[in-house]
Amino acid sequence: MEINIGLLGAGVVGSAVASVLLEGKEDLGRKIGGAVRLKKILVRESERQRSFQAPPGVLVTDFREVLNDPDIQIVVELMGGEEPAARYIERLLVAGKHVVTANKEVIAKHGPELSARARSTERQLSFEASVGAGIPIISPLSRDLLANDIRSIRAIVNGTTNYIVTRMAMDHMAFDDALLEAQHLGFAEADPTNDIAGTDAAYKLAILASLAFHTKVVPEDVFREGISSLEAQDFRYSQELGFAIKLLAIAHKENGSLQLRVHPALVPQDHILASIDGAFNAIEVEGDLMGRVLFHGMGAGSESTASAVIGDVIEIARRLNLDIKPLPMEENSRSIAIAPMSELVSRYYFRLNVADRAGVLASIAKVLGDRGISIASVIQKDADLPTQTADLVVTTHPSREDAVQESIRCMGELDVVRKVSNMVRIEDWPSR
Amino acid sequence: MEINIGLLGAGVVGSAVASVLLEGKEDLGRKIGGAVRLKKILVRESERQRSFQAPPGVLVTDFREVLNDPDIQIVVELMGGEEPAARYIERLLVAGKHVVTANKEVIAKHGPELSARARSTERQLSFEASVGAGIPIISPLSRDLLANDIRSIRAIVNGTTNYIVTRMAMDHMAFDDALLEAQHLGFAEADPTNDIAGTDAAYKLAILASLAFHTKVVPEDVFREGISSLEAQDFRYSQELGFAIKLLAIAHKENGSLQLRVHPALVPQDHILASIDGAFNAIEVEGDLMGRVLFHGMGAGSESTASAVIGDVIEIARRLNLDIKPLPMEENSRSIAIAPMSELVSRYYFRLNVADRAGVLASIAKVLGDRGISIASVIQKDADLPTQTADLVVTTHPSREDAVQESIRCMGELDVVRKVSNMVRIEDWPSR
Repeated sequence: MEINIGLLGAGVVGSAVASVLLEGKEDLGRKIGGAVRLKKILVRESERQRSFQAPPGVLVTDFREVLNDPDIQIVVELMGGEEPAARYIERLLVAGKHVVTANKEVIAKHGPELSARARSTERQLSFEASVGAGIPIISPLSRDLLANDIRSIRAIVNGTTNYIVTRMAMDHMAFDDALLEAQHLGFAEADPTNDIAGTDAAYKLAILASLAFHTKVVPEDVFREGISSLEAQDFRYSQELGFAIKLLAIAHKENGSLQLRVHPALVPQDHILASIDGAFNAIEVEGDLMGRVLFHGMGAGSESTASAVIGDVIEIARRLNLDIKPLPMEENSRSIAIAPMSELVSRYYFRLNVADRAGVLASIAKVLGDRGISIASVIQKDADLPTQTADLVVTTHPSREDAVQESIRCMGELDVVRKVSNMVRIEDWPSR
Repeated sequence: MEINIGLLGAGVVGSAVASVLLEGKEDLGRKIGGAVRLKKILVRESERQRSFQAPPGVLVTDFREVLNDPDIQIVVELMGGEEPAARYIERLLVAGKHVVTANKEVIAKHGPELSARARSTERQLSFEASVGAGIPIISPLSRDLLANDIRSIRAIVNGTTNYIVTRMAMDHMAFDDALLEAQHLGFAEADPTNDIAGTDAAYKLAILASLAFHTKVVPEDVFREGISSLEAQDFRYSQELGFAIKLLAIAHKENGSLQLRVHPALVPQDHILASIDGAFNAIEVEGDLMGRVLFHGMGAGSESTASAVIGDVIEIARRLNLDIKPLPMEENSRSIAIAPMSELVSRYYFRLNVADRAGVLASIAKVLGDRGISIASVIQKDADLPTQTADLVVTTHPSREDAVQESIRCMGELDVVRKVSNMVRIEDWPSR
């Protein structure tokens, strides 16, 4: 039996998937146990030059040509963006088609409803490519790691920002230059706002946390802070203190509630996440039985994404050929409270620009001490003679976020403080 | 519906699995969609003190009590060793039971026949725990990564030896002391031969390579060399050259044939495998689409193994509750030649003890040059005045294994060479 496939979208990832399916990858039919045929590709303009050779009639511009084609059993959605992709997926499932998508925004925002729809129509909705591209993480969380009570996820899931912080750390580049370079290399999009601000990472964290904690996490549940406040000094001072700076996506279950946050963090240099450089992704999952397991690889790129997409297609096609029903994903309907960010207890790093004179530290220590924040280390750096200022780098012992936020306001009001230049949370969980 | 489980073996891993199943882990029933009950545990002596509380009648000493119990649908085999485990698994599958095992020796030696048996009886044989304990790797190779043509696997899959080489490298311990410590800590067994000699890693590589290359690899196909020849100097000199030493399990497809080897290797310090320390495992898989993906975590230990075993049990139990047939593993029947070790092309590290006088290097360079081996670097180390000897550390450009082996013999016959103290292969594949 031949399995017919529809494809929505022919951007870089869509083109990579189309190439593999059209050009007939060695062994694909054997792995699937039968032939697959890419029957229709939904594109915006059918006339454009493309990196793959589509036979006549394959390119279509009307979604209904895919939706209403009775031969098509599996549809791959690679349009990106929330709409019309979410609506299309819903209609495809209702029409009895299996759907594979790489769309993190759709899955983060509509995953639970769409999965419920797939369950009710006995169809499969697969989205391995939505997080970490070719790194298997959706499937392990949904199946292999199920014996565990998951305690935490700590992840680098945005290649653009990781590339930027790596360049800033290793090559002392300024933020703007590193971003420009990432754009030239194709890691960052023309409008990189979603990456830089942590929105992309928040989508991915919502997907991972929903699976790991068997609950419905939506992107709005995730606290997010981007990387644009990071400056060269932060990387220099962090390195001296024994830390790397990474944009982390963290889900952590503690006292029955769930912290969900995306922000830059100081990570101990001997922790494996500190060594994940460039456009790579890494996802560390901690469970009560397995301890910490880390998944690492290229978390973006058309071929890596195609690996996950086609992997999902193969699994569905194998089932179809063997007439085996899909094992539905578990319904993630546990209710678990989201911990307010104000109650976070963490260690903190501050960089302050202060007057270079006696008594400064006493004033700052008083602000912190009055709010129950205990200082772990203080270093004075980069005294500037003409302006008589210096940088003061302070790290704290575990403290509450709300007390820290209030301290930042109060320190900013001190005469001796020119500027609270930055605050970064320190993630120095017990070493593995 | 209640799912009844049988367990063969109540050693440390069996006890951990029994504890989880008997004590009723939070949420397990909900994940499975119904209750599970550990009905029988096959033990050697029913009277022994145990870490779990077995209800009356659960402990049995006759295998047939499990085999012939019509209520038992899933059997977990944790006896270890080749026989009778392999025979038992075969009989269980024939009797219509699903089987979960952590037994690397059985799967490495009998995996293909047992999987064929499972296919023919429409039962599931799951063995996620056989490699890397709680690190998902069997499932990703069998499903998630299927879109790729796998090029290579490079893995640290033996925690005992990795613990030993880590201690030797970081703390300048001697081999025997590090081994003794690993035994005290419970990483190494009383008889550590299988670990030290690379046999355990060869079993695991046979399993991984069979899945990755869709073929039947047996342990005898794997070249193996253990870690007992490594000495403190090798770690010191390697570090100076920018390398760590790891016992690697390597499967590499090149020119249509498959290299399969387990041996100590010099790994560039900036490669992620160089930073996998202590009892951790890491498996790097390289595919044409996904690039390199790494799986990392605790590759041994009773709880980590229980994570994989119970993960497999959950999947089978979910299927049973939903009345969904298992998706059989693909039949790994491609034929691919095993490359003879003599034809390996690699870089090499030699440590020679030589006379400390002029002309020595010329003699050695001649031996190597005559066999087409080109020297990449030479360092003279640790000159010893009383004996007038010194260590000579030589690294080569890519060379053929057979030429290298012949050179070792010839260098050993030179007057000026007291001893060819060690040869270690260098694995400096292009950086990621």
